[in-house]
Amino acid sequence: MLKTIDLNSDLGESFGQWSMGDDAAILSLVSSANVACGFHAGSPAGILETLKAAKAQNVVVGAHVAYPDLVGFGRRNMDVASDELTADVIYQIGALQGLARAAGTEVRYVKPHGALYNTIAHHERQALAVIDAILAVDPRLPLVGLAGSPVLALAQQKGLKTIAEAFADRAYHADGSLVSRREAGSVLHDAGLVAQRMLQLITEGGVNSIDGKFTPIQADSICVHGDSPGAIAMAAEIRKLLESQGVAIRAFAPQA
Amino acid sequence: MLKTIDLNSDLGESFGQWSMGDDAAILSLVSSANVACGFHAGSPAGILETLKAAKAQNVVVGAHVAYPDLVGFGRRNMDVASDELTADVIYQIGALQGLARAAGTEVRYVKPHGALYNTIAHHERQALAVIDAILAVDPRLPLVGLAGSPVLALAQQKGLKTIAEAFADRAYHADGSLVSRREAGSVLHDAGLVAQRMLQLITEGGVNSIDGKFTPIQADSICVHGDSPGAIAMAAEIRKLLESQGVAIRAFAPQA
Amino acid sequence: MLKTIDLNSDLGESFGQWSMGDDAAILSLVSSANVACGFHAGSPAGILETLKAAKAQNVVVGAHVAYPDLVGFGRRNMDVASDELTADVIYQIGALQGLARAAGTEVRYVKPHGALYNTIAHHERQALAVIDAILAVDPRLPLVGLAGSPVLALAQQKGLKTIAEAFADRAYHADGSLVSRREAGSVLHDAGLVAQRMLQLITEGGVNSIDGKFTPIQADSICVHGDSPGAIAMAAEIRKLLESQGVAIRAFAPQA
Amino acid sequence: MLKTIDLNSDLGESFGQWSMGDDAAILSLVSSANVACGFHAGSPAGILETLKAAKAQNVVVGAHVAYPDLVGFGRRNMDVASDELTADVIYQIGALQGLARAAGTEVRYVKPHGALYNTIAHHERQALAVIDAILAVDPRLPLVGLAGSPVLALAQQKGLKTIAEAFADRAYHADGSLVSRREAGSVLHDAGLVAQRMLQLITEGGVNSIDGKFTPIQADSICVHGDSPGAIAMAAEIRKLLESQGVAIRAFAPQA
Repeated sequence: MLKTIDLNSDLGESFGQWSMGDDAAILSLVSSANVACGFHAGSPAGILETLKAAKAQNVVVGAHVAYPDLVGFGRRNMDVASDELTADVIYQIGALQGLARAAGTEVRYVKPHGALYNTIAHHERQALAVIDAILAVDPRLPLVGLAGSPVLALAQQKGLKTIAEAFADRAYHADGSLVSRREAGSVLHDAGLVAQRMLQLITEGGVNSIDGKFTPIQADSICVHGDSPGAIAMAAEIRKLLESQGVAIRAFAPQA
Repeated sequence: MLKTIDLNSDLGESFGQWSMGDDAAILSLVSSANVACGFHAGSPAGILETLKAAKAQNVVVGAHVAYPDLVGFGRRNMDVASDELTADVIYQIGALQGLARAAGTEVRYVKPHGALYNTIAHHERQALAVIDAILAVDPRLPLVGLAGSPVLALAQQKGLKTIAEAFADRAYHADGSLVSRREAGSVLHDAGLVAQRMLQLITEGGVNSIDGKFTPIQADSICVHGDSPGAIAMAAEIRKLLESQGVAIRAFAPQA
Repeated sequence: MLKTIDLNSDLGESFGQWSMGDDAAILSLVSSANVACGFHAGSPAGILETLKAAKAQNVVVGAHVAYPDLVGFGRRNMDVASDELTADVIYQIGALQGLARAAGTEVRYVKPHGALYNTIAHHERQALAVIDAILAVDPRLPLVGLAGSPVLALAQQKGLKTIAEAFADRAYHADGSLVSRREAGSVLHDAGLVAQRMLQLITEGGVNSIDGKFTPIQADSICVHGDSPGAIAMAAEIRKLLESQGVAIRAFAPQA
Repeated sequence: MLKTIDLNSDLGESFGQWSMGDDAAILSLVSSANVACGFHAGSPAGILETLKAAKAQNVVVGAHVAYPDLVGFGRRNMDVASDELTADVIYQIGALQGLARAAGTEVRYVKPHGALYNTIAHHERQALAVIDAILAVDPRLPLVGLAGSPVLALAQQKGLKTIAEAFADRAYHADGSLVSRREAGSVLHDAGLVAQRMLQLITEGGVNSIDGKFTPIQADSICVHGDSPGAIAMAAEIRKLLESQGVAIRAFAPQA
């Protein structure tokens, strides 16, 4: 039976005159593009250009929603009240939906960015605020979350579809949690090794943890990076190996 | 035959902890609410609250799109490139559409705010950028513009419906243009007089200009203010007089 | 011997077209003005106006530095890296020093605002980042902090002068900590009672805690509010009672 | 007699996670660094780093003040009221002075950026607002302006010292004005040719205009760019040629 996996990456992260990432290069490699919505990155004209490029390459787009923190790139934890977080997320999804319509495409999922992603993996109040936002603006949009984290079950309870995500270049603990970036060995740099791990993830349902044990990870999508030539080369290596082994790269399509 | 007119006002102009205007009071008086979209005013949680209040009062909402200038409240002219202006307007309309959906209502028209409103009345390049934005995101949305100004014809040529607007508290020149706020007598303060002028506008199709001549003004909607107790009292006076004379206050409904 | 106390209040918190507080009224009551620096509130033209008014009233000004969070008014905790926080605080102090010079006055102390104030009271890393900022830009500026909190000792160790602060309208626990705003009875509303408490603070060196025990509080300055007519009336009541009892209201002057 | 000239370039234009320019490379080539102040570019931690690098290289720093327009990089003309523009400029100079002090250096001049630079070259109201800002915050700071433009005489009338600036890579009309970027031939790309022109500027007091006539230009400083490898190579070529011909590269020092 044919295996399929979604490859996703962060795009549209330029801001005004400042560019970031090589959107064109990464669009040729992934099936899903997490597009910045203006709160951590992305200005409207640049976002629109990214959406048009994604449309031209048949790459599915999702809303990469974030805390309102441009100078911190959405990477700093913020203690945002629930009603404000809910409205912030609706605003960002709506803005991206408008731009997507103008680009002839549509928003198909929601992936929180940076600190918001990490926080809602475990912080129930903020997780509920994000879930409420999606329910209010478009309950058909699946929520992307860290594979194995509580936010996925919570979102499902509330009626959302979810997309469980693994990180190609990150080491895992035996319990399936990510090794913190502050610890040695947390980020993997060998493209060949990373590609082999992702093949293992798909064919065996898990990877070897940092202490050498097999760790089951149920993932619908794999996050790859496009913000450096090395990152793009790694994404290319992953795609090449997976396709050579008969794995289809395809945007996650939730069952009706 | 029954006369009808639309009364519109600017709402949702609070920002975070800063409040502006009395949205609840003005919602009981107008048929259309121009809701800020976050570029000149409005933060998502406050906008959402305003949209819910508009929905509860059966007031139609429009997107009050603006230059990206919070500190200047969108009142400072900006020389924005066309592709940036188009994308900025799409972004704002989309964001408000998302919040409107969450509030159980929908965006029904687009009204540029402040300096953008004044500029596109006559500045063709920027006018086209705004028109392109509406065509790209939702061509059914009518554009509100100054009665008699070139932007209305331009928008119609491009296939948009338009709403011609008069200002209740502003003096007009004999050619139908507004007297600049820098000139004496440009702003009218007598609520009773203003109400009479608006009745004249509807029943006779014009008002007396600042130099005493009758000036024809074809208006689909009248802009009233809600940002001070005096402004709200004036709006109430207008509504009361118009209704007492058999004029129905009703959101502008473009012909299919 | 004559008792003296400093009364301080937050000013300059308008932003562009949005006004907040009655700076003129509160300037006639306090000896020190904590002036917003643009990160949580305050736009340059408004800040400059406030500084000129403070100068005219002989009120000492301090830099009310904050997290970069306009929409959240600096009230949301943010996990800012130390080098960023240090530079943010230097930037704000410098900006206010420039405006103060233009107004014929000068910045005489630093008071962190909102979430930053509460966080550094106990969070050593962020406290050190703020202390480092003051040391780098002007080590003569005293740091205002919560009376009894660790940040004061830490700042003194590093060579800064400090100003211990009490809150006029807040209840205290027996250990000298503030009762959280989330608890009943945390905020006091009776102006006469509050004034008596502040007199007790000055003459007896403490107040009665929420559970009725006398709690020693060593305070150099008392924070009063000016953001509502009730708050201004309370500040007036405090000043009147203190002066009638021979307490001089005077900006804190650290010993050379 | 020894000829001297100042070479200046724009620095500190990164913002948060977005980088721009190669500050280290250009600092080894110029005598003066126009450092962004946070309104068109520059976040505090990055600005501080740039100032420390300038200090380490003995490069003089100036305040590169701008319109408040991050997303437009200060390149869009804005119709800012005089009191707002004055306060905005004071705020930016003060902020940079604070960071400069922390870096062990000091702000030595003011250069408006982008649209503000171009506007005040000829727009008297905005020019006066900028001049008033410098007079209010530190009247010893010279103002950099386009060589031959009216703003220089105006600033001198008001008591400011001025620095007349030429642009290394730009073509000039016979009247000494710049050829608009929209016209063919406005920007010069041949590093060798540009270096020769700058030598001619210094030794002969002018350059050949776009229509081949010698155009006198009295310049105290030459602006070079550092935002691309080609730009840095051109700056290096200019410096090398000038030094080989006995021209000293030295920050402009206004006579006492």
